[in-house]
Amino acid sequence: MSADVLDAGFEIVAARREDVGDILRLIRALAEYEKLSDQVVATEEALQAALFDWPARVEALVARSAGRVVGFALYFLNYSTFRARSGIYLEDLFVEPAERGRGIGQALLRAIAGIAVARGCERFEWAVLDWNQPAIAFYQRLGARPLDDWTVYRLGGEALQKLASATK
Amino acid sequence: MSADVLDAGFEIVAARREDVGDILRLIRALAEYEKLSDQVVATEEALQAALFDWPARVEALVARSAGRVVGFALYFLNYSTFRARSGIYLEDLFVEPAERGRGIGQALLRAIAGIAVARGCERFEWAVLDWNQPAIAFYQRLGARPLDDWTVYRLGGEALQKLASATK
Repeated sequence: MSADVLDAGFEIVAARREDVGDILRLIRALAEYEKLSDQVVATEEALQAALFDWPARVEALVARSAGRVVGFALYFLNYSTFRARSGIYLEDLFVEPAERGRGIGQALLRAIAGIAVARGCERFEWAVLDWNQPAIAFYQRLGARPLDDWTVYRLGGEALQKLASATK
Repeated sequence: MSADVLDAGFEIVAARREDVGDILRLIRALAEYEKLSDQVVATEEALQAALFDWPARVEALVARSAGRVVGFALYFLNYSTFRARSGIYLEDLFVEPAERGRGIGQALLRAIAGIAVARGCERFEWAVLDWNQPAIAFYQRLGARPLDDWTVYRLGGEALQKLASATK
């Protein structure tokens, strides 16, 4: 991954081990913004393993400004059977509120779009909360389109355990 | 992955190299059912690589009945930063129309739920077309819940290329 130093006074670089504490801090800030803080049980150790044990399960970019990590994006490869090709799925994108309006979010997305193209991915996807209109407007401006006729279903908790242990 | 031989006359087993032709046939049948055949450009070679080159990008189970592959499920690991944990994302599930009603789809989902639990995954997710009411009813009966307040956005084609090559 290439460093992308911008004249706007921030840089977008691949996350390193020493960034994991900052990434966890920003994950918590994102969860708070999304009103989902009760779901966060992540630890530095678990994130460290996902990002840096080999083979890595996820990758992340961080935005640095004045020596501080002020934003991040974390993504992984998904897969389309119809295309028989991997794509990039962006799990999280977050920029500290005080640092918004400087183009940091767009620079993070642009860097991942570049990674997607370099790896031959045709698709770059992510999920957005329907009430998050500022984010939606931003994504639409970049040319992203909603997959309006699809809904994601989740099986978790007791229902997952129950199905897993069903005999028939 | 364990073989799961049922007294219903079919078995659910991990896909092998020699199943890739059948999997591609079923992917095409699924695309036809979803009215998305125009999107299918998959080849046996590309699927083979995704399933069996190491490290594998995806895994698949097949359902065999009377020596024939009559259904399949293909999945990969996704990741939740909030949980700092991998989950399973089911990309495709398909059972030949003539073989439905025998519990094959449910057996495929049950097998993947078992894999999820064995690997410490808390979540098993997939996307469903909103008009596919029989599938939705089936998933709801198993305890799956729609993530109704999220929409997936996709950046692809020219918009992806454009963002990737933007200088700012």
